[in-house]
Amino acid sequence: MKAKGKFIVIEGLEGAGKSNAQNIVMEILHAHHIDFITTREPGGTPIAEALRTLWKKGVDGEHTTDKAELLMLYASRTQLVETIIQPALEKGVWVIGDRHNMSTQAYQGGGRGLSEVLLDQIKTAILGDFEPALTLYLDLDPKVGLERAKGRGELDRIEQQHIDFFHRTRERYLALVAQNPKAIKINAEQDLESVSNDIRQAIENWLSHS
Amino acid sequence: MKAKGKFIVIEGLEGAGKSNAQNIVMEILHAHHIDFITTREPGGTPIAEALRTLWKKGVDGEHTTDKAELLMLYASRTQLVETIIQPALEKGVWVIGDRHNMSTQAYQGGGRGLSEVLLDQIKTAILGDFEPALTLYLDLDPKVGLERAKGRGELDRIEQQHIDFFHRTRERYLALVAQNPKAIKINAEQDLESVSNDIRQAIENWLSHS
Repeated sequence: MKAKGKFIVIEGLEGAGKSNAQNIVMEILHAHHIDFITTREPGGTPIAEALRTLWKKGVDGEHTTDKAELLMLYASRTQLVETIIQPALEKGVWVIGDRHNMSTQAYQGGGRGLSEVLLDQIKTAILGDFEPALTLYLDLDPKVGLERAKGRGELDRIEQQHIDFFHRTRERYLALVAQNPKAIKINAEQDLESVSNDIRQAIENWLSHS
Repeated sequence: MKAKGKFIVIEGLEGAGKSNAQNIVMEILHAHHIDFITTREPGGTPIAEALRTLWKKGVDGEHTTDKAELLMLYASRTQLVETIIQPALEKGVWVIGDRHNMSTQAYQGGGRGLSEVLLDQIKTAILGDFEPALTLYLDLDPKVGLERAKGRGELDRIEQQHIDFFHRTRERYLALVAQNPKAIKINAEQDLESVSNDIRQAIENWLSHS
């Protein structure tokens, strides 16, 4: 029987360099002749992308409540996990995810202040013990990240939040990573080359031990 | 302090006569000089209606998984409850709802076969102990209801289900109503006048005792 694929997730604030990290992980898996697909959350299937758009833009000036947002994010997540990620892993294909559950814990838990109990209840009810084999968290000061993100154009719903929102989100990320043995923190405030080198080293090291 | 409003919900299979029941409840509340609004689920706010459309139609031929459907229904529900229903009740305005939580228990639990534990976890996590003051359940054989519903035109996602789906849904409805002291069962297989009389009597009787 073919070995199952592994799910590698890239996490971090806006402007942390997730796309660059994803490219590096793709290069490394290519070099190791590992088949993979990439996903992004929220999104990744037509339904999930429609939920992403609805969540980001609202309708007729109405925005989602924090709890409705949480459920839309999980609806999108379970659609992606059930129809794309789990079938790929079962076939031995690896998955590189741009965000997954830790984003919800950090943004909706830390940023918006939804209770950890509520988040854990929903996560456990919907995903059970499904989790990434590795989470690569790109850590940086929100100010640095938002400056970088602004270069990309219009700020979206999340990016319009007050800077305190991102500080709370980062604090929660750091706490989650500290207690998660399957997560690695990368200093993403360094110059691009240093960040890239750290990511390369972390991934190669993890691959050689897993 | 003004008394809080009450939340009356009308439940039942397709073709059970929910619109007729809603009209009767509206007439009675009018006659008693009670202010009220009406809602429908899923839907009732721009975001919630967008979720309803997404859930009913899917996107590019993709339909939601059962768990994604469940979360979209609850996202729609909490958006409606938080932004419309609870604020109305707080102001002393009554709410007549076309479907609420019992629909999810019956259709997604009974019909689709999602576990009661999962449904209870999500319900409790999101809505806590919020529940209708009265649920009026219009009971009829699914065959009778679907025959009536067909007259309305194109069948939607739910109405395309196999007849067994509706039998399981009805069984769950009956079990839920039997154990819920705030629910009243109406025999909706009778002719319109008899059903209407039973509804009138049930509502007037409930009002005089509440």
